[in-house]
Amino acid sequence: MSQYPSELLTLISYLKKLPGVGTKTAERFAFYLLEWSKEDLTKFSDKLATLKEKISPCTTCGCLMDSSHCGFCDGGKRSPTTLCLVSSPRDVYAIEETRAFKGLYHVLGGLLSPLEGRSIAGEVLEKLHRRLEENPIEEVIIALDSTLEGDATALFIKKKLDEWGMSTTRLAFGLPMGSSLDFVDYGTLEKAFTGRRVF
Amino acid sequence: MSQYPSELLTLISYLKKLPGVGTKTAERFAFYLLEWSKEDLTKFSDKLATLKEKISPCTTCGCLMDSSHCGFCDGGKRSPTTLCLVSSPRDVYAIEETRAFKGLYHVLGGLLSPLEGRSIAGEVLEKLHRRLEENPIEEVIIALDSTLEGDATALFIKKKLDEWGMSTTRLAFGLPMGSSLDFVDYGTLEKAFTGRRVF
Repeated sequence: MSQYPSELLTLISYLKKLPGVGTKTAERFAFYLLEWSKEDLTKFSDKLATLKEKISPCTTCGCLMDSSHCGFCDGGKRSPTTLCLVSSPRDVYAIEETRAFKGLYHVLGGLLSPLEGRSIAGEVLEKLHRRLEENPIEEVIIALDSTLEGDATALFIKKKLDEWGMSTTRLAFGLPMGSSLDFVDYGTLEKAFTGRRVF
Repeated sequence: MSQYPSELLTLISYLKKLPGVGTKTAERFAFYLLEWSKEDLTKFSDKLATLKEKISPCTTCGCLMDSSHCGFCDGGKRSPTTLCLVSSPRDVYAIEETRAFKGLYHVLGGLLSPLEGRSIAGEVLEKLHRRLEENPIEEVIIALDSTLEGDATALFIKKKLDEWGMSTTRLAFGLPMGSSLDFVDYGTLEKAFTGRRVF
């Protein structure tokens, strides 16, 4: 509403930039923030102001770093022969939660989108190529979204990896856990059929 | 996820304090904020840090003030004989949007809740009483939520206003605009019947 105090309007305009937040929700957030204690608001504001300095992407793998060292690259505790290719740092944490993977990560930083005219930049590919050459990596696991953009990127990267003579795998497609067949979409069911395994 | 950098975890904990924001949404917001420009983050953070200083409740009516004067109390452009009683400053803006009311406002700052053991504080009532005595107010319009708590508060305030000899009205209950009878709940339909008016 245009009658709000201008400071509140500016705050609302920033809150609206958050994903999935429309005007009504941003207004609700802003009025809620007005009721926070001064102390909480200052701490929250500090965290936002220093976010970019405190958290930066690792120059090697692209995962998020808290301090000067990367918890995923350093320490030698992880298997150096498998490399998992993900699109964003967030995916890394989702995979870590499964405890199914103990190798290294490589963050692409985005998916290519033919519809939006977005491609994978040359330097991203060069960086990946250099990493594969300089390290004893034997298998690259493509762990990208099972969407149109994820598929396009996976195909593009697979072609490059083939050129570089690298063994490549991709995450399995099939029924999600706990699903009943009559509720699963046809695309997934088809993938589950074509990808069936000896039982 | 506990493996996030600690700075990110703290940010997520603050974002989770926003209404209707759970862990997943807070994580999404946090990763989105990581992609904001340094400039946007600084401005957003500044707005939060100075929120309490820049926006304060008017000492007379309780509405939000941008600078040193209250847009609702000052100026003498509003009718001084009707006073609209609302529970929060946010309600004021909703009523202003209707352009149906040109009188003064009075923000209670909360509703009483017998279930949560919350009552209307003595000083809130005193402040309202003083305002009614010191100003030429002829009618108090109770504009509280049509909920259990809103009803309880309205009844409580009505009793006090009767004691003080003040003429009191309450917002009408009935069918919301654009509703069809078979979709309206029974409570609303009953209120619409008992509150029917000569046509």
